[in-house]
Amino acid sequence: MIRTHTAGSLREEHAGQQVTLAGWVARRRDHGGVVFIDLRDASGSAQVVFREEDHAHDLRAEYCVQVVGQVRVRPEGNENPDLPTGAIEVVAERVEVLSESAPLPFPIEGNVGVSEEARLKYRYLDIRRQQVATAMRTRSKATYLANEVMHELGFVYVETPTLTRSTPEGARDFLVPVRLQPGNWYALPQSPQLFKQLLQVAGLERYYQLAKCYRDEDLRADRQPEFTQIDVEMSFVDQEDVIGVGERLIGRLWKDIVGYDLPTPLPRMTYADAMARYGSDKPDLRFGQELVEMTEYFSGTTFRVFQADYVGAVVMPGGAGQTRKELDGWQEWARSRGAKGLAYVLVQEDGTLGGPVAKNLSEAELSGLAAKVGAEPGDAIFFAAGARNASRDLLGAARLEIGRRCDLIDESLWSFLWVVDAPMFEEDGEGGWTAVHHPFTGPKPEWADNFQDHPGEALAYAYDMVCNGMEIGGGSIRIHRAEMQQRVFDVLGISKEESESKFGFLLEAFKYGPPPHGGIAYGWDRICMLLSGGDSIRDVIAFPKTASGFDPLTGAPTPITVEQRKEAGVDAQPKAEAAKADGSRTEASKVEA
Amino acid sequence: MIRTHTAGSLREEHAGQQVTLAGWVARRRDHGGVVFIDLRDASGSAQVVFREEDHAHDLRAEYCVQVVGQVRVRPEGNENPDLPTGAIEVVAERVEVLSESAPLPFPIEGNVGVSEEARLKYRYLDIRRQQVATAMRTRSKATYLANEVMHELGFVYVETPTLTRSTPEGARDFLVPVRLQPGNWYALPQSPQLFKQLLQVAGLERYYQLAKCYRDEDLRADRQPEFTQIDVEMSFVDQEDVIGVGERLIGRLWKDIVGYDLPTPLPRMTYADAMARYGSDKPDLRFGQELVEMTEYFSGTTFRVFQADYVGAVVMPGGAGQTRKELDGWQEWARSRGAKGLAYVLVQEDGTLGGPVAKNLSEAELSGLAAKVGAEPGDAIFFAAGARNASRDLLGAARLEIGRRCDLIDESLWSFLWVVDAPMFEEDGEGGWTAVHHPFTGPKPEWADNFQDHPGEALAYAYDMVCNGMEIGGGSIRIHRAEMQQRVFDVLGISKEESESKFGFLLEAFKYGPPPHGGIAYGWDRICMLLSGGDSIRDVIAFPKTASGFDPLTGAPTPITVEQRKEAGVDAQPKAEAAKADGSRTEASKVEA
Repeated sequence: MIRTHTAGSLREEHAGQQVTLAGWVARRRDHGGVVFIDLRDASGSAQVVFREEDHAHDLRAEYCVQVVGQVRVRPEGNENPDLPTGAIEVVAERVEVLSESAPLPFPIEGNVGVSEEARLKYRYLDIRRQQVATAMRTRSKATYLANEVMHELGFVYVETPTLTRSTPEGARDFLVPVRLQPGNWYALPQSPQLFKQLLQVAGLERYYQLAKCYRDEDLRADRQPEFTQIDVEMSFVDQEDVIGVGERLIGRLWKDIVGYDLPTPLPRMTYADAMARYGSDKPDLRFGQELVEMTEYFSGTTFRVFQADYVGAVVMPGGAGQTRKELDGWQEWARSRGAKGLAYVLVQEDGTLGGPVAKNLSEAELSGLAAKVGAEPGDAIFFAAGARNASRDLLGAARLEIGRRCDLIDESLWSFLWVVDAPMFEEDGEGGWTAVHHPFTGPKPEWADNFQDHPGEALAYAYDMVCNGMEIGGGSIRIHRAEMQQRVFDVLGISKEESESKFGFLLEAFKYGPPPHGGIAYGWDRICMLLSGGDSIRDVIAFPKTASGFDPLTGAPTPITVEQRKEAGVDAQPKAEAAKADGSRTEASKVEA
Repeated sequence: MIRTHTAGSLREEHAGQQVTLAGWVARRRDHGGVVFIDLRDASGSAQVVFREEDHAHDLRAEYCVQVVGQVRVRPEGNENPDLPTGAIEVVAERVEVLSESAPLPFPIEGNVGVSEEARLKYRYLDIRRQQVATAMRTRSKATYLANEVMHELGFVYVETPTLTRSTPEGARDFLVPVRLQPGNWYALPQSPQLFKQLLQVAGLERYYQLAKCYRDEDLRADRQPEFTQIDVEMSFVDQEDVIGVGERLIGRLWKDIVGYDLPTPLPRMTYADAMARYGSDKPDLRFGQELVEMTEYFSGTTFRVFQADYVGAVVMPGGAGQTRKELDGWQEWARSRGAKGLAYVLVQEDGTLGGPVAKNLSEAELSGLAAKVGAEPGDAIFFAAGARNASRDLLGAARLEIGRRCDLIDESLWSFLWVVDAPMFEEDGEGGWTAVHHPFTGPKPEWADNFQDHPGEALAYAYDMVCNGMEIGGGSIRIHRAEMQQRVFDVLGISKEESESKFGFLLEAFKYGPPPHGGIAYGWDRICMLLSGGDSIRDVIAFPKTASGFDPLTGAPTPITVEQRKEAGVDAQPKAEAAKADGSRTEASKVEA
């Protein structure tokens, strides 16, 4: 090392010692012949005093320097109690500029707001800023702790392939042309799902991985084309075992990183309850404002809008005091989510009900309304009416928006729960069914024999971990019997041919004594974001991309040259199947040698 | 868990207990009404006794079963001291078949030879075999230990992007079309080299990662298109620091996994010495048979073949006893490596020298020859003459071949060393120079100012860790000064434009106070192979591909559909540069929202 001490480690006990430091010029203050410089390295910073100005003459912000000097206790009155090194300073004897810095695109020190464009383009400078560097270190610590917990629990870390077979399902696969087999393409995995199940057939029993996954999705605010999950799969287990491992993992992370004691076992809520009470499968329990179902209440109404399969309400505290513009804003907000609008009733301070909807309600309907929904004078009541799921979605979103606008969410709280018993299937809008999770998700034991007869009611043996209104993990007990898997494919309308081409190798594997198994995957970027107090997963990704997949730092993606295109075999026609099979056979025998 | 105990954990102390086990039917023995089954799970196996045959009637190999029974001490004389559970057996009371198994493509139990084609196609069955499962577990343990060491040493784990910018350099990039930016492509990284250097500019000081890397290389015996390295980079260090970290890491792995005490500091050998003495930059020191330079010895020879820039020899003990066919075989061997042949002299038991070359040598040359090369009666002496590097390569390969054929290599030995002081540059065969490592590798301090004047002699500040003749790690101290980097580019004939387009973002980063830094990358697959005693990295990869990149299990790669091709934008034309730049700006401002 070209230094003897790290800057941040110096204390009074070092007084009198000669030290060599190396780091960056963070702050500079000139005081008539004496120059003070804060020297920053990864450990923190220390004040360096240059008594002769000429030594410090050329030192500008973010120069990388090596300083030799003597530690001394700061003169009385000059201590900085806010700084771990605030009791001492280093009197410079020699300084060497290791490298200079051009003028910076944005300041490193101080909490200056910087556009995300600049932050991402100069990410290597952004990471020098304390908050960003701390987030990187928190993620590293979390990764270490995750490995420690999984190791303690006897899990085997297995790296699964990332150049694999395209399985056109759900989100789109990223594709990779294969030069050595022109006309053929790999796909980057959306998750190690099939491989982790194969590892259970393989008898490893407890698998985990910090797995890079890829989804070629459309633009969304906080998604990345590549993301990381802690991927877990276990044999001979039921739901309780997987949940237990999850609570150990999350418990360790929250305890060791933010000092929070996870209250285990975590509360559980059924999917049906979560949807009914919060209009969400990932309810944020840090505040109330639960949805109130009003279908029965309005069953005899003459108001046509409320003559619907479902009517529900959510209360906005103090919402009656909103301006006309604010109330119109809610209509726009609802329309931007695909709804027609957001009906509302205002509870005036005198208890009377106002707003356009009130005029359409009967005296009886009006008189019991505030009590029924739990509204107080001064509150607004928002309604949604129509199809049950869509209406609950809208109310659930309104609830969150109310929480934000009314500042109802205590940001210091952690609210964890498991959402269980999700439906196995949902209607695909074309008269058929799709899998809510994936086609390998098993039914709850009580639905094992007859889910196919009631696809709309059958419950999956699935569980999602939710934290502060975000899904941070999700998994299920899988199907391991071919006969049951076939019934699921039948419900989903997946033909033998289709299932064969998509995951024939998994079905083949299931012929050879597959164990009962289940697992879970945790969204690692999101967990690290929560642990580091960030707002976006980009805060905990060293080199993130924008929502469209652009990397402002490297300029990726880029056009490729004609030569690259030709060499990669992008435009090659695959050989006929027979030829290919032959080729592989030759290949396979070759590698035996 | 659907079991109370793991099979492999049962001991005499469990006698009398009722237990529930779950696992696979490993072996079955029928003894007149009594059936013995070895029940295997991840922990090992236990003998289960079925006293009534009907219970065990249907249990065939690799059925997955749950057994309830009572543990008892085996009747005297029936103990199996080779098995940890050999003192007990479980008397079955109930058995449930969890899943059946079709007839197996190859047996799981016993050390039966199986073709690699079958092993890879049915990898999930292959991994059930003890040796393969053990290799997977060894790799997992190694991964855990590596994380532990790096954590102790204060390294920050950072995940770098795997969808990044194509840098057409060395091996070929795998390319990925980007649907959201049609006509533009990502590249999969050949290593995190540029990102890990950026993380040093970012001030993280100590970075590491278990990094997935991708190289689209031509067929070679033991390569995979995707592979893993332990990637390390450090700031404010010199070579000793990086070497010290490497010895800590490798020392822990070898100590905790194979019980070997790494003798640190490891011996070091210069690249020049390694080439001169072993004809290799990764010498296998587990046996002697060093190369002997004979250029001076034959400086006056009349034998035209030896009138060369370089003449060298290597001795094959007992080689004079080879048949004519065997000696001809060496010629073929040499030709298959691109040499013209392999000249040899046989030292007969009476000390006279035979073979075709001997006739061409003078009395004086013959008389001192055996002593000069250290050959004994009965040995063969092989020669290479010609260009120095090519001749040494040939002799180095001959030495290894001699080691194998004569069984000179003690497979129980570990031979570690560092090879240091490699050349910075080598001739590119077209009058120019290429970088032996990569263009960011720094010169040794004594060459800092004048490497550009003597590119053929300048030494790199680089170090490779070698184990048993394999390179398992390699790295260097990097260049961090723009001025020096420019001199390297000048030697390499890389124009400003070219360097800008290839790694402009790194050069840009280096304008902002880059710290002195260096690092290393360890070939993780190879290290795990050595630790688990395998012959191929495929032994320690859960789902490996064949040399041509084919996966016999999933059938990847595959042709893609016309729809996939269209949707992925494979054939789209990139927009003009200006439009693209605009697009990115819009994008970047979008994500700020």
